[in-house]
This record gives sequence, C-alpha cells and structure tokens, in this order.
Amino acid sequence: MKKVVLSLYLLSLITSFLKNNVVVSAGRPGIYERHPDPQGQFPRLGACPDDHACIFPADVSQFLPGAHFDLRVELHAYDKNTKNPAPDFYKDFKTTVRKENGPWMDVNEFFDIQENPTLEYWNFTWADSAEVFYADALGNGKKPIDVNVSSRVWRKLKFNEPGTYDVSVQYSSTEAYTVRYTVIEPRKPKRKAKNAILFIADGCNIGMITAARAIARKHTSGKFVDDGLLTFEDFDNLGHIITHSIDGLVTDSCNSASAYATGHKTSVGALNVYADSSPSSLDDPKVEDITELIRRRQPGKAIGIVTTASVQDATPAAFYSHSRTRDIPDHITDQIAHGVPDWVNAVEPDVLLGGGANHFKGEKSLNGTDYYTLLHDKHNYQVVMDKHHLNEYNGHDKLLGIFRKDNMDVWLERNVYVNNTVGNEAAPDLSGTDALGSDQPGLDDMTLKALEVLKKRGGDDGFFLLSEAASVDKMVHYLDFPRAYADLIEMDMTIKKTIEWLKKNGEYEDTLILFTADHSHSFDVFGTVDQELLTSQAPSQENMRYSVGVYEHSGWPGFINQDQYGFPDNWDPRFALAGGTGSGPDHFESWKLSADKPRMPTVQNEKKIVGSNKEDQAGNYGHGLKWNGNIPMDQIVDVHSMADVAIYSNGPGSDLFKKTIENWNLFFKMTEALDLQYPNEDDAMSDKKSTNHKQQK
Amino acid sequence: MKKVVLSLYLLSLITSFLKNNVVVSAGRPGIYERHPDPQGQFPRLGACPDDHACIFPADVSQFLPGAHFDLRVELHAYDKNTKNPAPDFYKDFKTTVRKENGPWMDVNEFFDIQENPTLEYWNFTWADSAEVFYADALGNGKKPIDVNVSSRVWRKLKFNEPGTYDVSVQYSSTEAYTVRYTVIEPRKPKRKAKNAILFIADGCNIGMITAARAIARKHTSGKFVDDGLLTFEDFDNLGHIITHSIDGLVTDSCNSASAYATGHKTSVGALNVYADSSPSSLDDPKVEDITELIRRRQPGKAIGIVTTASVQDATPAAFYSHSRTRDIPDHITDQIAHGVPDWVNAVEPDVLLGGGANHFKGEKSLNGTDYYTLLHDKHNYQVVMDKHHLNEYNGHDKLLGIFRKDNMDVWLERNVYVNNTVGNEAAPDLSGTDALGSDQPGLDDMTLKALEVLKKRGGDDGFFLLSEAASVDKMVHYLDFPRAYADLIEMDMTIKKTIEWLKKNGEYEDTLILFTADHSHSFDVFGTVDQELLTSQAPSQENMRYSVGVYEHSGWPGFINQDQYGFPDNWDPRFALAGGTGSGPDHFESWKLSADKPRMPTVQNEKKIVGSNKEDQAGNYGHGLKWNGNIPMDQIVDVHSMADVAIYSNGPGSDLFKKTIENWNLFFKMTEALDLQYPNEDDAMSDKKSTNHKQQK
Repeated sequence: MKKVVLSLYLLSLITSFLKNNVVVSAGRPGIYERHPDPQGQFPRLGACPDDHACIFPADVSQFLPGAHFDLRVELHAYDKNTKNPAPDFYKDFKTTVRKENGPWMDVNEFFDIQENPTLEYWNFTWADSAEVFYADALGNGKKPIDVNVSSRVWRKLKFNEPGTYDVSVQYSSTEAYTVRYTVIEPRKPKRKAKNAILFIADGCNIGMITAARAIARKHTSGKFVDDGLLTFEDFDNLGHIITHSIDGLVTDSCNSASAYATGHKTSVGALNVYADSSPSSLDDPKVEDITELIRRRQPGKAIGIVTTASVQDATPAAFYSHSRTRDIPDHITDQIAHGVPDWVNAVEPDVLLGGGANHFKGEKSLNGTDYYTLLHDKHNYQVVMDKHHLNEYNGHDKLLGIFRKDNMDVWLERNVYVNNTVGNEAAPDLSGTDALGSDQPGLDDMTLKALEVLKKRGGDDGFFLLSEAASVDKMVHYLDFPRAYADLIEMDMTIKKTIEWLKKNGEYEDTLILFTADHSHSFDVFGTVDQELLTSQAPSQENMRYSVGVYEHSGWPGFINQDQYGFPDNWDPRFALAGGTGSGPDHFESWKLSADKPRMPTVQNEKKIVGSNKEDQAGNYGHGLKWNGNIPMDQIVDVHSMADVAIYSNGPGSDLFKKTIENWNLFFKMTEALDLQYPNEDDAMSDKKSTNHKQQK
Repeated sequence: MKKVVLSLYLLSLITSFLKNNVVVSAGRPGIYERHPDPQGQFPRLGACPDDHACIFPADVSQFLPGAHFDLRVELHAYDKNTKNPAPDFYKDFKTTVRKENGPWMDVNEFFDIQENPTLEYWNFTWADSAEVFYADALGNGKKPIDVNVSSRVWRKLKFNEPGTYDVSVQYSSTEAYTVRYTVIEPRKPKRKAKNAILFIADGCNIGMITAARAIARKHTSGKFVDDGLLTFEDFDNLGHIITHSIDGLVTDSCNSASAYATGHKTSVGALNVYADSSPSSLDDPKVEDITELIRRRQPGKAIGIVTTASVQDATPAAFYSHSRTRDIPDHITDQIAHGVPDWVNAVEPDVLLGGGANHFKGEKSLNGTDYYTLLHDKHNYQVVMDKHHLNEYNGHDKLLGIFRKDNMDVWLERNVYVNNTVGNEAAPDLSGTDALGSDQPGLDDMTLKALEVLKKRGGDDGFFLLSEAASVDKMVHYLDFPRAYADLIEMDMTIKKTIEWLKKNGEYEDTLILFTADHSHSFDVFGTVDQELLTSQAPSQENMRYSVGVYEHSGWPGFINQDQYGFPDNWDPRFALAGGTGSGPDHFESWKLSADKPRMPTVQNEKKIVGSNKEDQAGNYGHGLKWNGNIPMDQIVDVHSMADVAIYSNGPGSDLFKKTIENWNLFFKMTEALDLQYPNEDDAMSDKKSTNHKQQK
C-alpha cells in the first residue's frame, strides 16, 4: 500500500512540475503574491493592480460552495511613456487554476469546459490623473493613454468544495498575475431564520439617525426617558459596516448593495458584476446574488423587494439584476422578466413595489415592450398602481406595484405638502396625469402588503424581503435635510409596524430583521439656528453667523410633537437643526424648509459650470450662509462619504451582525442565518461547469 | 389585626392629606407634572423649565442608593416684559420631598437636617436670544433681562432606598415646581469585573475611526483581510452612546465626562455638578463620581488617571473634581490633594499622569502652592517628569507624572517632528527649558506604567483606569486632521499593548475594557485629493476643485506602511484623504500636513473678528480651497457635533454596553459591572443626612 501511495505522490509531483512548466514557463512563476492596491484616484481599471493583467473575480474574493460566477481575464497593452498609440494586443496568454497550492491546470480542464472561449478585443483610453480626466474643463490639452485589451470570459462557473483556489494568467515569458480565492466552509445557523427582512435607509449615517431621534422622540433634562429611542435601536444587536469599494474609499449605492447581495465588493455603478473595461455594460463578469441563490436552494421561499425609489434604482436592482451600470434602467426592467443569458433563471420577485413606471412601457421601455402586460400575462403578476388598489389586494398571485413614473415622492410631499405633487404628470400608467401624493402608498403600506403576500406565497418556507427608504440619500444629496429626516422617521415607523405585524402573525420569533444603510454622507448637526435672526440680519456672512447656536447655545430645536412619537407637527421651526455636510457644491444655507418642492442646491449654465441655484440664494434659502463648493465642478449635488454605517439586527442570527464587518460579509452572514450556505442537489446537477472533483484531488 | 392595619392606613391618609395641604396650599398642588424642555438657544438656566423655580439635581435624575448629591433650589424673579429692573427676590418658598407618591415632608425633616440652610441671594442677567447675547458684536443695542435669585442648598444628601422620589418647591400661593427622581434597584453583575479600563479618544466620531483604519491597516481589493481591523474593533461588543447635554444638543468634554463619571447629564463646562446660576464656580450642587464611590465602597481598589492633555483638562478632571467650569485649573489641581469641603474625601488617584505642570507650582498655582512637594510630602506620591523616570519607576507608592507645562505634545511632534518641541520652554519643572518630544512618554508608556502600579496597589481588589487620547479632539478643532489620525492610531496601539499586558499578567479575563469617545465632530472623508494638482492649478476655486477625487476617483490614499500595521511611514502623501467638517471658521484647506507645528486655522485681530490665518492662506495650506465660516465669529476653531459615538467593550460586563445607551447610563453600567451598586456599611453610617427610613414608610 505504502508503495502505491508513494507512487501516486511522485506522479502528482511530476504532473505538477510538468503543468507548472507548461503554464508558467519563466520569470514570475505564477506563485500567489499579493499586489498592493493601486493608489491614487485614477487606476487603469478597478481592482486590477498588475501592470497588464486583470482577473475578475478579483484577488481575495470569497465564495460559497456552489455559488455561480463568471471568470474574466483581461490583458492591457499600452505604453505609459509614449502613450499613443498602444502596442499590439496581447494574444497569447494562458489561464490556469489550482486548488490548495496543488498542480496548476488549464482553466478549461479544471472546470471541464470543452471549448476555449473566444478571444475578445477592444480598446479604451486611460485618463491616469485628474488633470487628464478633466483636461477639457482645465483647458490643459492633456491626453489619456490608449489601451488595447484582449480578453476571455468563462461563464457560470462554480467551486463546489471549500478551500483555497488560485487563478493565474501567464502573459509573457516573464510575466504572470495570480489571484487567490477562498471558498468558505459552509456553516449551519445556530437557529435558522425562516424569514429575513433587510431594511435599508440609503445614505443614512450615524449623524442622520441622531437627528431623526432628536426630532421624533421627546426628551426631559436631555434624556429620552419615556418614549425610548428609535424602534430599531431596541433591536438585539448593533454593529458597523465598512463600506469601501473594491477600488476606492467611497462607494455608491449599486456597489454597496451588490456587496450585500453577493458577497463581492465591486466598483461604483456596478450591479452584481465585477466591472471590466469592455464597452458593453451587459457582458461584465457576474456573481450570484442572494435572491438567485434562494431560488436555487430554497425554491419555496418568497422574495419581496420594496423601495420608495424606482424599482430599477441601485439598491432594489442589486436584488434581481446584473449590469455594469445603473444607467440602463430599460435593460434592468427587462431582467425582471427575462434575467440574463447564460446564467441562472430570472429571480422574478414575488412582490416588487416602488416607482419607475417610465421603463415599464412607452418610449423609455426596452424595445417599447409593455412590461405591465408582459408580466401580468406571461409571468402571473397582478399589477397595482395606487395606494387604494395596493391596500385592497388580497390575492395569492405575485404582485407588481408601480406608483410613479420615476422615484416616488418623499414623505413630506406624500403627507404634508401634497399640493406639490400636482402637475407632475407622473402617473404610473404614463397617461400624463398626476401621481398625487395621497395616491402613492407609504413605505409602511408597501412593506406591510409585501409581508402579507410573502407570507401567503412562502408559507413554511418563509420569505426574504428588502425594504428601502431610498430618499434619505437622495434628499441629503440635495442638502434638503428636513426631507431626509422625515423619510428616516418613516422608515422607523415602518419597522415599528413590521414588528407589530410579525408578532400578530406569529412570525416574529423566526424572522431575522436587519436595519442598515449602504454608505454615509458627511452629515452631522453642530447646533441650532435661529432662523428669525438669520433672516433679519443685514446679509453679511459675519453677522448672520451669530444666529447659529453651538455648545451651550445649541439648545433644543423647536419641533413640537403632540403625540410624543414619530413625526413632528411642525417642520420649519424658528429654531431648526443646524446641520450640514463637509462636502458639497456652492450653495447657500439657511436651514429653511423648502415648502414648494425638494431643494436643488445648484444649477448648470450652458458652459456646464455649476453655480448656486437662484432660488437657493433668493428664495427659500435666501439670506443663507454662503458655502463654497469643494468637490469637482461636475458634481452638482453633495457626494457620499466613507464613514462606517450602523447595522441593527434582531432575531435568529442577529448575533452574527453585532461587531464591525465589511459590506461583502453581510451576504455570508445572511446566508448563514438563512441556512443557504450548503450546496444542494441543484448545485451538483444543474451545470457541468463546476469544480472538477477528480482532477482537484 | 385587620382593624389595626386599617387604622394605620387611615392615619396615613390623613397625614398625607394634612401634609399635602400644609405644603401645597393652592393652585398647582405639587403633583409631579413633567415640563417640556425649554426650546431655543438661550434658556434662562439649563435644565430649568419652570418659569421661576429650578431644582437640581434636575427632573428625571437617577441615583444609586447611597450615592451622595447636593440639592439646590433657585427662585428667579424677573420681568420679561419691562425687563429691567427685576422684581423683589422670592424669599418665601417651601421645599418638600416625598417617596412613592407618599406624604410630602419638609426637606429638612425628610433628610433629618436640624437647621434650614441659609437663604442666599444673587442676581444675573439673562440674554434670552442670540441678538441679545451678541448685542455688542451686532451693534443692535439690545439689553438682557435682570434676574434676582434666591436659593438654598442642602449638601451631601443621599437616598438609601430604591424608589421614586419627588422634590417640590412651592413659591407662591398658586405656583409650585416638582421634579421626580428615581433611585434604582441595585444590580449584581452576572460576572464581576475586578478591573475596568475606560479608554476615551476625545472627540472621536465614526468618521475618524474609519479614517484611522484606512491609514493604519492594509487592504487588498478593498478588504482588510490579513491584518484585521483596528484592535478595539475585535472587542466583544459594540454600542452607541447618545451625547446630548442636559440642556442642549451638543456637549463639551466636561459635561460628557461628568455624565460618564456620575450618571448625571449636566451643562457645558460643568464637572460633576449641576450648573446653578450663582457667581461662584465652586458652590454648584455636586453629584458623586465613580472614583469617589470606589473609594467608599471598594476602598482597596486602585484608581488611575492617564491623559495626553493636562491632568486638569475636562475628561481627567471629571474623575476627581467638582467645579462649574474647567476654567479654574488651579482649584482643580488643589482638589487632587484636598478635595472639596463638606463632601466625601478627596479621591487622590493612585496614578495620575499627563500634562498641566503650570498649575502645580509657580504663579498659576493656587496661592502659589508647590503641589509637587505637597503631594510628595503629605500625600505619599512619587513624582516623575519625563519618560525615562516614568519607565524606571518600579515602586509601590502612588505615582504622579507631569510631563509638560500644559497639554502634552501630540504623537507626530513626539515621534516624527521632534524638532517642533524645541523652544517651547514647556518643561514640567517650570524651569523654562524645553519639554522635548522624546522626553515625553507616549499614551502607551503612560498606560502600561499605570497598569503596573495599579496592579501592585490594587492587588486582589483590582483597579479602575481612565486613559485618554485627548488630542484627537484638540487636533480636529484645529482642522489638523493628520495629527488627529496619528493620536487615534496611538490609542489603538495602546489598547493592543494593554491587552498584551493584561494577558501576560493574568488580568485579561477579569478586566472590563471600554473604548469610546465623549462627543463627535462633524468629520468625515469624502474622497482623496491630488495635492500636486491642487497646488499646481491657478488659484481658482473652480479649477482647484477638480483635484478632489470622489466616488470612483476616490481611490486609496498614498499612505505606505512597510510593517503593515499601525503608523504609516509617510504622513503627507500626494494623494491625501479629503476629509473635513460641516462646521468651522473661515479657513483654507489643501489637506497638506503642517510640518512646523499643529495647524491653527484662524486669527483674531484687535476687533476680535476672526479671519483665516495667513499661514493657512499662504503657508502650509497655501493654495487651498476656501471654506466660509458658518459658526459664530467668537468660535475661532471648529466646534463639536451631536452624532452618537461608538463604544467598544470587552470582558466581564461588556454585554451591558452593546446597544444604544445615553451617556449618563455609562455610570450605571460601569458600577453594575464593578459591583458598586449596593450601599455598604459606609453608606449607612457615614452620614446622618440620608433618607429617613422611619418616616418614609
């Protein structure tokens, strides 16, 4: 016996040696060696630290066993010195894979693929610094670098077994680039969550939560004694989420939601794909998201997606679609019905509620398709378009509710300044009539109806629900803080009602509830402002500044709340919160509520230079303090920031979320709580292109 | 039997009726009725919502059984309409107390006090709005309101029994004001913490933690995979602390540290007292702090206080002193030795390390006292004044280490720009020589030496240690962000070394470790800045803004860290973090490190109008983006903000700190973990002025 084993061992050594020599002939031998992240603002391509090669999924990616992904290799030919033109395309490169530092195998052999994918070619220009990227605006005549790209992509792969996997590309006799993946050992939950609800207040940082609490709860001697804190602050556990992108400090909502949904960080704008350099937004290498995994591993579970934005907006789209960019909402809409080619089936959420009618029919719809009809006739959806019909729906069919042509109106428009919704021609049937505030459901209406339908459809298999307060982010972008406060308070009230519903319906004990954000804004409150004094002063910045009360003069703002809980009765008190961001475009600030419509702090003139809005100077915010912009001139609203966000968790599995975690890890923790980490029969049988067991061992 | 009980019951009803009628003769009958907090920026006196009466401790205060406090009642006579002069003083008012809605008793009778305290009189002027408060600067001729105050104070009271207590003052036939206190039911810890270490990074918000991590830890593909997160992020639990003042949104460090130390929120600038309106800063009503309680209830326990600020600075002072204001450091120094009159004994910390020599001898010392000599000769302290002697100390005596005339230099001066410490004439012996950076110990040196001495002195009774990174706050005030990052990283390294020390010395399992802040600044990072581009552009705000990279151009900053952990090797990379605050004075920002000295963003001219520092315009920050001030002109540096801060906790009792709590509750949770909540023999015997048991029942 011993001899045989030894022989096999020797054989494997020889095989390994041969394979290594075939694949990695000289120079850097394809041994895994971590490259430092590229530093600076304009890398050639995100998460691509090698001088010429890129591999996606990127280095140090983690996978569940059996989770699908596309593998793309890119080779970049360019001359950084002469810049233009680029050298010839790399045509001869070899991609290999190994497990646990074992023998290197050709990628096709490793994944049992018969045919090498077509070699693709394209080119792009690389603006390698701000002065090149903004050359037109700066008038400096700087030119970008031409890059010639050759690439191959392998679709719908998976690793079935836990362990360490290296992928290497050898692209010259001396040059290779290797990435390392980890397929995690799957874990059973201590106590399985039958249901999970992921509440996301988009762009909500700790400063915003503190502000919402100060408005929505009563205090005595500076204590929130009787009414308690915000609903979610009573959850079992509190943690923080680190939100960086794969290739930069500051994420957008697509990228962040993708990390939550797939376990993979990606680049700004990308939805459940790694961002490649190709011109197409639909060919980037995909990773499987949690709703797709649910459909394969717990097919009985019901899936719901609720948002106050368009349903094609960043956060909801990350729970059913794949795209390099959010800027193709027509394609994203189409993926609701058809999914994407050469991939798992479309998710077809059981409940999908929000705005975004523009891309469901008419000229902005893909090929003019009427998706209302299509989804109703071919995919068994019932369709509702206003609050009344939403509330009335008590069927068992899948439910599509689209309530406005684009993002839904915010809470203040839907509930207080309802007249602002007149004249918007935003009806979801695209009839050109108005989507009146009072016809649009609240986040609470949508969430409770979703729960009702999901319980019916999921039954014993439970449900997964995403519910997003999207406009916290949108209103902070506009520097319209009162509207952000209101939408966050609406989220808190929705969570309160959700808990009541879960308890009433016997689901509370079995439901993991998460409340978090996807990124921060640099928002905080540093005092109060006496608006009467501000606007009665001669308009000198120096004099007006005395109306801002800090420290012992911060006092408490003048919000009044008769019922002591939730929304205040007045939204524009004399003593308002003096809050703001550390970044932004030029604007004026008087902390005055914009009663006419959400604030828009800037305008663009013909030269595309951004200035303060005239209304911001003379109208609602007239007589405000002048704020000089400090972000690039093409940013017309405030930008995101990088501070960690909070995650509040309750119920089975909530202890997984109690410390500081990275955004990608939310996926792994949610799949653990829901018992989704073990491959099932479908994983083993659905596809040939999985880890080749025989060869690996 | 039944008859007797009934009789007693009837008697008590009659007594109650009589007492109520004696005390509260008409109008508002002294029944507890919560007043809303005063709103706006200029209340008459903090935490004093009644039109004329104030009672401190304030409404809804909470106490441990047996914890000491002073009770002060103030009556304010003023005429808000005619304003000047004030009406005659209130001379005839009656203060009563009851337990559990029982019979009202005269306060002297309730606490068994023989003599009614003297009636005191003073007056103050009430600027009731910003335009009055800043009348001189605004030149509007507005005048404040005269207020005549009469007051009584009862010293060193306590409630020995848990329950609800009301204190009422009847000051006219129709007017009374009542506050309600709760004396909590004491709790035993699940597992007692023998030791507790409270690490405070002053002024450190979530944005600052995120920034320090991005600098101090390496990342690959945007993940902090190998080196982990910051040390304290590995702690058992994470929570948030709400930091509001008793009378306003935004706290300072005195107020916040007092809340942590005593369980009572107070006002800006106050140290372990409720802020009354009297002229003296030393007569305000005190509350007992945790170190005083430790001395009475666990007298064997050793107490240490370590800070990089002066030892009389806000945070350390709250752990041994009582004062209305931090602005009397001579008196605060004296309290190290002598405590305060008519109160518990002085804390005399076993270890006291930091700066602040100015007030230990010489002209700024109280009555010219040499406290070095006094503390050595009369209080058994050994005194050290430099790093060498600190490190060498291996005795058992109490240890006083004072290393600089005022605040100690920050980490960058002590370790990188050591030449900046030449010429400061800051030696702690006040000899006029320099306190060189390299002679000053680090926070890690001080903390580890403190642990060593405390373990020797506390023995089996353990220790309580406060260790403060004070200059995170001070440097953010100056908008000198790199220096703040460095001092926070120093705190993290100190925590790492502390854990190593605790494990090596067998104390880890018995030690509760807390890391938190006391308040936020509105700081966050929204991208990176290309400093080369910024300073090469023509000085137009518009053009310069293109050097700031946001979202996909935020990239990663150019910090290099060869040893992959902790402090970077370079502090002024081309690609720096683009961070900032949402509030501040006029200044210029180029995110350039000030190599000469900590940045000072503003100057005052003769008219006391604040402008940007010339160095900030033309020197280190020359060519920066212009930032317009948005806080009152008398604020020469940036101000605090109100966002919750994080608290990271580890070890026995750490689960008490895992969700969102208010700052005052930290005291109750620490005393629970340390088993300090039960009154001991000293509580029952030390003082007559405690709850009168017989009468209460």
